[in-house]
Amino acid sequence: MRPLRPSSLSRDHFNRKVRVRGWVGDVRDKGRIVFFTLHDRQDWVQVVVKPPFIEHYRAIGGLRRLDAVIVEGNYLPSKIAKRGAELVAEKIEVLSRAAEKLPIDPTGRTPVELPKRLRYRILDLLSDRSRAIFKVQETVLWAVRTFMRKEGAIEVITPKIIGAATEGGADLFTFDYFGMRAFLAQSPQLYKEQLVIPFEKVYSIDTFFRAEEHSTSRHLNEFVSIDYEEAFADWRDVMVVLERLLKYICEKISEENEQELNTLGVKPWVPDLPLQRITFDEILDELKRRGVDVQPGKDIPPSALQALTKDLERAYFITEWPTELRPFYTKPCDDDPSHTESFDLNIGPIEVAGGSTRIHDPEVLARRIRECGLNPESFQTHLEVFRWGMPPHAGWAIGLSRLLMTLLELSNIREAVLFPRDRWSLIP
Amino acid sequence: MRPLRPSSLSRDHFNRKVRVRGWVGDVRDKGRIVFFTLHDRQDWVQVVVKPPFIEHYRAIGGLRRLDAVIVEGNYLPSKIAKRGAELVAEKIEVLSRAAEKLPIDPTGRTPVELPKRLRYRILDLLSDRSRAIFKVQETVLWAVRTFMRKEGAIEVITPKIIGAATEGGADLFTFDYFGMRAFLAQSPQLYKEQLVIPFEKVYSIDTFFRAEEHSTSRHLNEFVSIDYEEAFADWRDVMVVLERLLKYICEKISEENEQELNTLGVKPWVPDLPLQRITFDEILDELKRRGVDVQPGKDIPPSALQALTKDLERAYFITEWPTELRPFYTKPCDDDPSHTESFDLNIGPIEVAGGSTRIHDPEVLARRIRECGLNPESFQTHLEVFRWGMPPHAGWAIGLSRLLMTLLELSNIREAVLFPRDRWSLIP
Repeated sequence: MRPLRPSSLSRDHFNRKVRVRGWVGDVRDKGRIVFFTLHDRQDWVQVVVKPPFIEHYRAIGGLRRLDAVIVEGNYLPSKIAKRGAELVAEKIEVLSRAAEKLPIDPTGRTPVELPKRLRYRILDLLSDRSRAIFKVQETVLWAVRTFMRKEGAIEVITPKIIGAATEGGADLFTFDYFGMRAFLAQSPQLYKEQLVIPFEKVYSIDTFFRAEEHSTSRHLNEFVSIDYEEAFADWRDVMVVLERLLKYICEKISEENEQELNTLGVKPWVPDLPLQRITFDEILDELKRRGVDVQPGKDIPPSALQALTKDLERAYFITEWPTELRPFYTKPCDDDPSHTESFDLNIGPIEVAGGSTRIHDPEVLARRIRECGLNPESFQTHLEVFRWGMPPHAGWAIGLSRLLMTLLELSNIREAVLFPRDRWSLIP
Repeated sequence: MRPLRPSSLSRDHFNRKVRVRGWVGDVRDKGRIVFFTLHDRQDWVQVVVKPPFIEHYRAIGGLRRLDAVIVEGNYLPSKIAKRGAELVAEKIEVLSRAAEKLPIDPTGRTPVELPKRLRYRILDLLSDRSRAIFKVQETVLWAVRTFMRKEGAIEVITPKIIGAATEGGADLFTFDYFGMRAFLAQSPQLYKEQLVIPFEKVYSIDTFFRAEEHSTSRHLNEFVSIDYEEAFADWRDVMVVLERLLKYICEKISEENEQELNTLGVKPWVPDLPLQRITFDEILDELKRRGVDVQPGKDIPPSALQALTKDLERAYFITEWPTELRPFYTKPCDDDPSHTESFDLNIGPIEVAGGSTRIHDPEVLARRIRECGLNPESFQTHLEVFRWGMPPHAGWAIGLSRLLMTLLELSNIREAVLFPRDRWSLIP
């Protein structure tokens, strides 16, 4: 019989002999009597070690935090014990010994700087705070898939190793692939566009790679992208899908992660729809009025957006970006080719998603590829697909960790990734 | 207003003017009258082009297969038309022109060899057969996540770019990472083992990479692995989880994909539990009795297993593999260290999953690393975690496409991957 978990103990086990497995938590050694907590990842039980069994406890060398053990004993109701019961040990089987000195405090009680927390990530994940973040991530992943299934979108898995045709020429990791030159994909962009031909609505949640030399609190070199693409749709159509999804995610978090939000000190939040929509040029005008100049051809820095907090909702769309700031596949506006049918979704000053109507005409696309200084030759297998029934289409991509970071008010994206990869860190 | 989809037309639209968007299918041109089918990815409607509108039809140059269009017209009940109704065109807006000559027949009526199908994958995905495979994949992905959520396992996302500590020394793709040497992960193995400390039960569905020079119908260099790992569990515990999951997946496919199974000519199948369990040595004995010798230290080839079809259920476990055939982290049997607490799950002659009890003692693990000819130095950050509360644990991994391949009786794994990567192909 497998031993019980602490969280599966109930009143039904009172006054019965039980075997319980788990990790040792706090140990209070009073000499003739020892108390320790025995944990699983949901709950814990208090264990009492008394004479005569205390002799055996001493003989095995006692216990310490994070030892993995099976405790056999009587589960007795108790008026003093926190959980209303305690386990009186009669046998302890040590399954695994923890180190005497742990590199960081796994209880989270002693503050530790983020780089050290990430170096010893597994111990860091024992703190309520860190674990809460990834429980919320689970909710987000689940919510996206539930939503997409209801929308009739099919989940697709696109290649990470690619041979040519990528979004841009730069920021690619390159490697040898059986004598061929291969790259790590920056996004599923070209594949998801192609896949609207057979599937109409597609989505993916997948890891991608950028070889950019960033050193910010919101960029990583390996990241998870939530992608959506829809046939016979334009930017306005998919903006509505995106804001409905955001609302759905926030609702699910509010419902399912009350405890985690509490742990993180974050108030539940669900946006009202439609979200605020403000054009790129309106933002620039507003900033100019306040004496802040954004250089032409440059993105709006988060610090500038911070200045507009009073004019902006918590989540809002910045629309109609200048053509020069968007990738080649973005459709310029019919009446003003210097701007595009595009949008970013921001939460506070941080961009969490971006999308657009795509160019669906292969001639126009080839021209834009050239205008962006790229070689249409390397996009041949992509361009040919545009003659196989490519309808007008639009889509977007959310950065999963950016979304988590903003919803949970984390100051660094690295907190929202189990094992983050930046230009300095490959380990653990 | 967005135009309607063919599949959203109903009797409610009879005798009304409608706008319908979709792709042109078969075109029958009778001179004074033209019929064509207008498709979305679920259904289609018949369109009739009659005088006087036929003039306009000629003026725009007519239509051909895969053109993307919006048709405006009257939706009239009809006794002849297949769908019980037809759309009498009054206006056609061409959104996108398809090529006159398509490289392969997108209807799937003309047989095409697999390499050519994969080269022109998007067109291939228009055939019912190819699309059916990925609809079933969607069901499998959904079933795994639903099952895991019920089990209380948390979904984790582990790095694809890794700096050291991998399963083996060989078959890794290597590249430069900001001046450091990096590798593409072969599996989430070491991370998922570590993550049982904070989460107890973890799973992931993710893409991994092997630089092996295979040329078989069941190997690829980029593949999706469904991984599970559980704390305080052994191989027998996780075998039960695996067989329950397999049954659950098969049930869901039978329920949700009747049409796709029909298209693929596959009978619904749900295994009875428990699955048959046969040891590696029993298989060898049985083969020897039939005059088939498997060389010591070698895997059992699928062809040999084929010979045992009569003795084996459709799905079965091969257990207790020789230690030399399993990776270093596999726990040898207590009473016979030449064999391990391990298993493969086969469907027919093909291995779709493998798993084991893992070694949880860091000294034993370091010894096994050395015995396998690897350097414990490069596993330092992995080994240190084993002193932070590593309990006994066990887990397994399923190859998603292997599973699809066997369940759908496909003869080549490439059929079960949207854009497969083997040593010869990086495109599309």
